[in-house]
Amino acid sequence: MRAELIMIGTELLLGEVVDTNATFLAQNLADLGIDLFYKSTVGDNLGRGQELIRLAMTRSDLVIISGGLGPTDDDLTRDMVSLATGRKLEENTKVLADLKLWFRDRYGEHNSMPPHNQRQAHFPQGSEILANTVGTAPGFWLDVAGRVIVALPGVPHELKEMFCGEVAPRLLAKGANQSLVVRNLRFIGIGESSLEELLEDLIAVQTNPTIALYASAGSVRVRLAAKAPLKEEGLELIKPLEQVILARTEAYLYSSSGQSLEEVVAEQLLAAGLTLALAESCTGGLISHRLTNVPGSSGFFQRGYVAYSNQAKVEDLGVKKATLEMYGAVSAQVASEMAEGVRQKARTDLGLGVTGIAGPGGGSEEKPVGLVYMSLATSGDTTVQRHLWRGTREQIKNRAALAALHLLWQASRE
Amino acid sequence: MRAELIMIGTELLLGEVVDTNATFLAQNLADLGIDLFYKSTVGDNLGRGQELIRLAMTRSDLVIISGGLGPTDDDLTRDMVSLATGRKLEENTKVLADLKLWFRDRYGEHNSMPPHNQRQAHFPQGSEILANTVGTAPGFWLDVAGRVIVALPGVPHELKEMFCGEVAPRLLAKGANQSLVVRNLRFIGIGESSLEELLEDLIAVQTNPTIALYASAGSVRVRLAAKAPLKEEGLELIKPLEQVILARTEAYLYSSSGQSLEEVVAEQLLAAGLTLALAESCTGGLISHRLTNVPGSSGFFQRGYVAYSNQAKVEDLGVKKATLEMYGAVSAQVASEMAEGVRQKARTDLGLGVTGIAGPGGGSEEKPVGLVYMSLATSGDTTVQRHLWRGTREQIKNRAALAALHLLWQASRE
Repeated sequence: MRAELIMIGTELLLGEVVDTNATFLAQNLADLGIDLFYKSTVGDNLGRGQELIRLAMTRSDLVIISGGLGPTDDDLTRDMVSLATGRKLEENTKVLADLKLWFRDRYGEHNSMPPHNQRQAHFPQGSEILANTVGTAPGFWLDVAGRVIVALPGVPHELKEMFCGEVAPRLLAKGANQSLVVRNLRFIGIGESSLEELLEDLIAVQTNPTIALYASAGSVRVRLAAKAPLKEEGLELIKPLEQVILARTEAYLYSSSGQSLEEVVAEQLLAAGLTLALAESCTGGLISHRLTNVPGSSGFFQRGYVAYSNQAKVEDLGVKKATLEMYGAVSAQVASEMAEGVRQKARTDLGLGVTGIAGPGGGSEEKPVGLVYMSLATSGDTTVQRHLWRGTREQIKNRAALAALHLLWQASRE
Repeated sequence: MRAELIMIGTELLLGEVVDTNATFLAQNLADLGIDLFYKSTVGDNLGRGQELIRLAMTRSDLVIISGGLGPTDDDLTRDMVSLATGRKLEENTKVLADLKLWFRDRYGEHNSMPPHNQRQAHFPQGSEILANTVGTAPGFWLDVAGRVIVALPGVPHELKEMFCGEVAPRLLAKGANQSLVVRNLRFIGIGESSLEELLEDLIAVQTNPTIALYASAGSVRVRLAAKAPLKEEGLELIKPLEQVILARTEAYLYSSSGQSLEEVVAEQLLAAGLTLALAESCTGGLISHRLTNVPGSSGFFQRGYVAYSNQAKVEDLGVKKATLEMYGAVSAQVASEMAEGVRQKARTDLGLGVTGIAGPGGGSEEKPVGLVYMSLATSGDTTVQRHLWRGTREQIKNRAALAALHLLWQASRE
C-alpha cells in the first residue's frame, strides 16, 4: 500500500508551528508496514488543497489529510475532499445531535451550539465517521474506487487519539500489508562511529531486518526494523540480531524498550534500594528535574541542592572555604566535596556533585567554558570525572546532565 | 513571488526526525515577504524526486530543495534537478579543489578525499555555487527561464548558514517582493479567549497588519504581521496597533521582542537588584533549571533546594514538623514556611516555595493530583496561591514552573 500525507494549514507554511503530526503519522505508518511516498503541506486554500488531493488520488492508495476540520471559514478539508472526489457534502444527523449535546454538557442548557459548528456535521457522501473522543471535530474515512481518503483533525492529541483508536484498526483490518517490527536500542558512553565499527559486519549484510544508527547530543540509537507477514515472524527475525548486538555492546546499551535514561536509572536505583541526593551547580537543577520527571522518583530521590553561590556550597554542602580558595569552585576537589557533603547531609547511599562553567561568560584560558567536574560519592569511595564540552549554555547543561545520568546508571547497574 | 519547498530524505518519511529545516525556511521566507504555497517531502528516490521538481517548476517561481547533497549513492538532488531541468551535470574544478583541501586540512597529507565525495563537485549546467562554510556539501542556485531552483544541504546548521549567508541576500537582491515585519507579543496570566475578547474589535477589522493568536500551555502569543514595500513602512504600520494593544493588556504582556519569561524575570530582578532563593518540591528543580538557563543568572539566583522528602523540608528550610503533621506537605502553610525559610536561610530578598502533587500517584479526594501551593516571601510579606491543574506529571510541573515565573515577574516589575 502506497500512502501519502497532506497537511493542511497556513500556519504550517508560515513556520509558526513545527509539524509534529507529520512525524507521528510517518512513524505509525512505518510501524504498520505501510510505505509513505509523499508528504505535502498546503495552506487553507480551497483551490490548491483540492488540486493536491486530486493529484494524491492518482498516485497513492491511502491519502491521510490532517487539519482543516474545525468550525471556522478557514476549515476547508470537507469541501476540498468533496470537490476533489465529486462526493457531495451531506449532513450527518447523529453527529449534529452529538455536537449539540457536547456544547450543552460543557456550557449549560442555555448556551446552544454556535451556528458555525454545524459545518462539523457535514461529510462527503459515503464517508464513515471517525469518532473524536477528545474534541469536537469528527474525522472521516472515504473509500473512492478502492483508494482511501482519511481526514483527521489538526490538533495533535485529537489526531493521535483518532489515528490509534479509529484509523490504525481499519488499516490493520484491510490487512493488505506486511507488518513492520521495530526495535530501538539506546546507547550511552559510546560515539556513533565507534558503535558503527562494532557493528560494521552486521550493517554490511543487512537486508531484513535493517539496521540504522541515529546520533543526538551524547547518545546513540540503533533502529532495527524487520518486515514480515506476521508480527511474530518479524520478532523472530529481529531476536537473533538483537542478541548478537547485545553481546557486543552490553557496556553501553541502556534500553531496548523505549525507556529514557532517567527511567532506567530510577528503576535500577529502586531495585537496588539505593537512595540519592544531588548537589548541582552549573546544571542548575536540570538533573533533579530529569530524575523527578519519573513517576515514583520520591522512592529514591531524597533531595537536591542547586548551590549556585560559593556561600551555598559552604553552608549547605560543607565544602571547605580553603578548598574553594585554593582550587576554585570549578575543580575536582570541590566536586568531590560537594558529592561527599550532600551524601552526608542527606544520609543517602549515593551523593552526586556537579560543578562547571556553562557559559557563555565566566570562562578563562585555564578553565574554559564547557569545563565540568562531576563526582559520585558512595559508602565505598568517591570518584571524579573531568569533562570539556563545546556548545551553548543549554547544550553544556544538557551534556552534563546526561553524563551525570550515565554515571548513576553505571553505579546502579549491578 | 510564489515559493515552494521540497524536502528530500527517506528518514523524513519514516518519522525518524522532526523536520526543523522546513520550519526554519518557512519562517524566513515569511519574513522576506515571500509567499510559500507548497511544501513537499519525498524519499531518496530519483524518479519521484525528479517528478516533484518538474511539478514544482510549473506552479512556483522559487523552488527550494533541502537535503540529498551528500557524497553517498542516496544523495540524489543533483541528479534529480539535472533530469527535471535537462541541464547536464558538470564538474566544477574550483569546488573539487576546495573539497580536496578540506579533507587534507582535516585528515592530513596522506588521507586524500574519498572518491565518493567527487560527486559533491557536480552541478547542473548554469548553476551558481552556494558556498558551505560549515560543511563539505556546497549548494547551488539555478535559474531556469526565470524560475529559480535553490538546493541546500539537509544538515540543519549547514542549511541555516547557507540560507542566511547566500540565499537570503540573493532573494533580497531580486527585490521583487514586499517585506514582512513581524512582531510577537507574549502574554502570561490571561487565557486565549479572554485576550481575544479584549482585542475583538481590532481582530474584526484586521487587514494589514494581520493579528493572530496562538495559545500554548499557560501562555498566549499574539503575532502582528505587516506587509510593506520597505521594512520601515512595515514598522510604521505595526507601531500604532502595538500601542493600542499594549494599552489594553499591560498587566499581561511580558515580552514584545522574543524574550522568554525567564529572560524577562532575570532582567527585572537584576535591574531591581533583587536576589532570589528557591524551595521546590513538586517542580523538582525545573524552576531553578529555567532560571539558570539565562546567562548571568548567578547575578540574582543564589541557591535552590529541591526538598523532596519531608526531612529535607524540615532540615534545610526550617519547615516545622508540627505544620507538616497538621496540614500535610501539600498545603498553604508548608508552602509559606518553605518560602520564608529559604529566604531566611539564603539571606535573599525573595524566597519562593512550591509544593504540590505532580502525579500520577499520590493524589487523594481532598488533595488531588495537580494541586499546587506556591508562596512568595519578601521583606514586606508572604503571599500564597493555590492552583489546580490537570495533565500529565510533566505538564503539571511545567504549569507550576510557569506560574512561579509569573509570580516572580509580577514581584519584580516595579
